[in-house]
Amino acid sequence: MAGGPELERLITLLARLPGLGPRSARRATLWLLREPVGRLEPLIEALATARQKVRRCSRCGSLDTADPCTICADPRRDRSAVMVVEQVGDVWAMERSGLFRGRYHVLGGVLSALEGVRPEDLNLAPLFARLESGEVREVILALPATVEGASTMHWLAERLRPFGVRITRLAQGVPVGGTLENLDEGTLAAALRARLPEEGDERA
Amino acid sequence: MAGGPELERLITLLARLPGLGPRSARRATLWLLREPVGRLEPLIEALATARQKVRRCSRCGSLDTADPCTICADPRRDRSAVMVVEQVGDVWAMERSGLFRGRYHVLGGVLSALEGVRPEDLNLAPLFARLESGEVREVILALPATVEGASTMHWLAERLRPFGVRITRLAQGVPVGGTLENLDEGTLAAALRARLPEEGDERA
Repeated sequence: MAGGPELERLITLLARLPGLGPRSARRATLWLLREPVGRLEPLIEALATARQKVRRCSRCGSLDTADPCTICADPRRDRSAVMVVEQVGDVWAMERSGLFRGRYHVLGGVLSALEGVRPEDLNLAPLFARLESGEVREVILALPATVEGASTMHWLAERLRPFGVRITRLAQGVPVGGTLENLDEGTLAAALRARLPEEGDERA
Repeated sequence: MAGGPELERLITLLARLPGLGPRSARRATLWLLREPVGRLEPLIEALATARQKVRRCSRCGSLDTADPCTICADPRRDRSAVMVVEQVGDVWAMERSGLFRGRYHVLGGVLSALEGVRPEDLNLAPLFARLESGEVREVILALPATVEGASTMHWLAERLRPFGVRITRLAQGVPVGGTLENLDEGTLAAALRARLPEEGDERA
């Protein structure tokens, strides 16, 4: 390729990033090289810092440059509520909403016979340790609404019951802004089962 | 943000890449961190190599880890034909087509009164030097088919005329696979002006 093998390799690596392809990887490479000091160097530094400093939080399993992570270390976060999620991206999504003021636990996966994910492959021990400390009063199961996610939540709820904590799940239903015609049957069924009385309806 | 300020900075920098946004920058960050050795480290190395080694070719103005660049240094390339393009990305696009076996010259821009780009802002001296060497017989003007590109080609053709070389331009017309209804008037006019006799039409 024009530009030599080193540039070709950079484009190949960038093209592997989710969301980029060969075309945008080429554009990104040229964009970075147009201002090496202002664009390329800061990116190299940020990636190198991430490589050196980011680790799994030993308490919740999330990724952070500090251990315990920013959330686990924050004294303003509610210690009594723990939300169990599959991945770090789920923590980030929930944090962007700003709705949850408790702490998280990242399982790192869900049980799956098909993909050979067993309980010992999940990040479970630190969760049980936290429950043993007695500070947790509610565990919110927020695993994906898939077959594997649902069966993992069922399995986990059984394991958590002996701790005597409240166990809840995220509600299922019609996404805000969603139209019925594009929803699958499972979601429609869940939304119908969990229907709520309309405000002001005396008979509900 | 969850993950700490260093991760937040990495996501911000990745989100600036053309083709990525905040959402895909978060996905890319998590994807890289999932396998630091296999994904993050090779990318850091490739970016650092690009930072250290990539430079402008002193002959043609393209980007390469070698100077003269891979194309200028290739003895199999035709020295007698030079294609003048605006940007390095244009060289890469033409090379992917595999159609051109001559060499390139990257101007680094086009003349623009609006954006204050004057002749002295363009990479012109090495082009004139190559023409003075006497090895060039044809200069193909392949600047963008915009108002600025067209006036730059006109301006440049005047400057090149004293060298006594053949000066050509890329043809304009209907893009291969393009339908007429989506084409602008300028392209339609150019395609009509430059119409060719249908093969076998004796009257044309």
